[in-house]
Amino acid sequence: MKFAVKIASAVAVLAMLTTPAMAEKTVKWKLAMTWPSTLTPLASPPAKVAKMVKEMSGGTFIIKVEGKEKHKAPLGILDMVKGGQYQMGHSGSYYWKGKDISTIFFTTIPFGMTTAEQYAWFYYDDGMKYMQQVYDRFKVLNYPGGNTGVQMGGWFKKEINSLEDLKGLKMRIPGLAGEVFAKLGVNVTNIPAGELYTSLDRGTIDALEWVGPGMDIKMGFHKVAPYYYTGWHEPASEMQFLVNKRAYKKLSPEHQAILQTAMKAAAADMYYENFAASANAWEQMKTEFPNIKVKTFPLPVLKAMKAATDDLLDSYAAKDEQFKAILESQRKFMKKAREWTIISDYNYIKTSMDVK
Amino acid sequence: MKFAVKIASAVAVLAMLTTPAMAEKTVKWKLAMTWPSTLTPLASPPAKVAKMVKEMSGGTFIIKVEGKEKHKAPLGILDMVKGGQYQMGHSGSYYWKGKDISTIFFTTIPFGMTTAEQYAWFYYDDGMKYMQQVYDRFKVLNYPGGNTGVQMGGWFKKEINSLEDLKGLKMRIPGLAGEVFAKLGVNVTNIPAGELYTSLDRGTIDALEWVGPGMDIKMGFHKVAPYYYTGWHEPASEMQFLVNKRAYKKLSPEHQAILQTAMKAAAADMYYENFAASANAWEQMKTEFPNIKVKTFPLPVLKAMKAATDDLLDSYAAKDEQFKAILESQRKFMKKAREWTIISDYNYIKTSMDVK
Repeated sequence: MKFAVKIASAVAVLAMLTTPAMAEKTVKWKLAMTWPSTLTPLASPPAKVAKMVKEMSGGTFIIKVEGKEKHKAPLGILDMVKGGQYQMGHSGSYYWKGKDISTIFFTTIPFGMTTAEQYAWFYYDDGMKYMQQVYDRFKVLNYPGGNTGVQMGGWFKKEINSLEDLKGLKMRIPGLAGEVFAKLGVNVTNIPAGELYTSLDRGTIDALEWVGPGMDIKMGFHKVAPYYYTGWHEPASEMQFLVNKRAYKKLSPEHQAILQTAMKAAAADMYYENFAASANAWEQMKTEFPNIKVKTFPLPVLKAMKAATDDLLDSYAAKDEQFKAILESQRKFMKKAREWTIISDYNYIKTSMDVK
Repeated sequence: MKFAVKIASAVAVLAMLTTPAMAEKTVKWKLAMTWPSTLTPLASPPAKVAKMVKEMSGGTFIIKVEGKEKHKAPLGILDMVKGGQYQMGHSGSYYWKGKDISTIFFTTIPFGMTTAEQYAWFYYDDGMKYMQQVYDRFKVLNYPGGNTGVQMGGWFKKEINSLEDLKGLKMRIPGLAGEVFAKLGVNVTNIPAGELYTSLDRGTIDALEWVGPGMDIKMGFHKVAPYYYTGWHEPASEMQFLVNKRAYKKLSPEHQAILQTAMKAAAADMYYENFAASANAWEQMKTEFPNIKVKTFPLPVLKAMKAATDDLLDSYAAKDEQFKAILESQRKFMKKAREWTIISDYNYIKTSMDVK
């Protein structure tokens, strides 16, 4: 009893004395993301990490999330995290291909791995090792930040029946896929997101790619371009969490573990969120716009895309040792992973279609 | 300065005084799981949760994991967690179908949802609501505990060419799938895991199902039964974390949040782990045993399985309102989810096969 009272009064004294010190101990971070705060599901992982980290740490670790409407630098995330202006970022690794071409492997590549295959490569093969190797030069830590699953090939105003139909086609398609299409004669352009709908409606462009039904439905493209092509170029786009290395090292081991676990849970969750959003949005779209036609590109077009993709990847590999090593690692793992995907998922889905 | 010194000495005094009190505050839980401790990936989520919880809580929340080699009651997990003998459990929800048939929906059902579809149903449709509703009567909380992905249809000594070939076939296949096979004339038996290999080798049974290459390879079935059938009966088997409700309520909000996040991250991770293990094991199997033949059941057999499954599910639904409500929820969500899976994943995998 006496002992307990002693403790109680010591605690009371300490509480008075330590209020300023405790306040100093609360870690306050800022996270800048490429997306506007309202753009779910891309904006969901940072919000969820902030919530989980606050709850798990009992409010001793606070992360303030800023969307692009606040910081105005959607493609400045890597620089801002590297410079320490923000301790964290949420973006897409392939946006930094101008700084280092190997960054593309941590988002997705055309004809690359599916979501399950890629997570298996990240966590149970060489993925995380290479990811950290590539981001070391930027003095940031990099982690998976949520996956979109297979992205659609895009909205087209006219059907694509042959390679000939691609020649001169005006299309908004960024990144490596844009380079592939350019090789096939497409007139690849980039247009800000806010002008896309009008450009497609007015015929300034003939086609564009965005994400999938869950995100596309808000853009309204299905109202002005009826051909919706299945995916080939972004089979498993993974977002990224960037963490400033110095800031991370200053965290207590508990806060480090809390941050790591929250990022992993939030990344996994985005895949489920986007899957549900796409399933629901597709049902709505096809009901309200029964003229939408889901198409797969003709085989000669797909084969030309695949050849152009391989050429492009091989040409980068010839100039860059690191790129070459990662490409080989992905190809090697994907070979066996895809075989298992076909035996398991592909056959199961096919079976469910056949018994209908 | 003076202030800092005051704090420092108060902290020192408190440290001396509070050691016993602090020790009392460390939460110590025990988790019992259905599997032996060495049986990865099924045994992985509990081990990972224990590690993450310890690290995140700075050692103030410790979970001791016990495999079945210790507690000897692999199918007593629900009772032991309900009774408070263990605060947590890790098992498979469908093991409790004798207590409540609706528990099967939180593992998998024949011709049911894939992993992505099911997680979308859990977290972005009605899944978690129904899960908690069903487990409320056991006074436990229930959470997803890791997914195997599509399980294989099993190892068969002879090829199945027709429904006739199933008649009188002796097969180890438990659960609802066993009931389906029984309807088709299969002589369904249950045999302890340790005797399976010998039973199959000696012809005591003609076939059995286990999980997939990653786990099957350790059992050696491929050495004695060359026909490996693709999946239909367990498309996305989800493990479960059981938590005693009273114990959970006693946790601090921080420990509750830490446990929740750790479970979610560990569940997601098991899917990646098992995927990688199966991709690697399949490559090894087919290299070492080139006589293994991957087969899909003939369409008349699959159609009979599907009809028997629907009959069985409908007959349970006719007797049980809760079962009926959950079945309808799954069917409704799966209809749109599967359509999106076909547009996205199925078409992408098909494309990757076609361009080869």
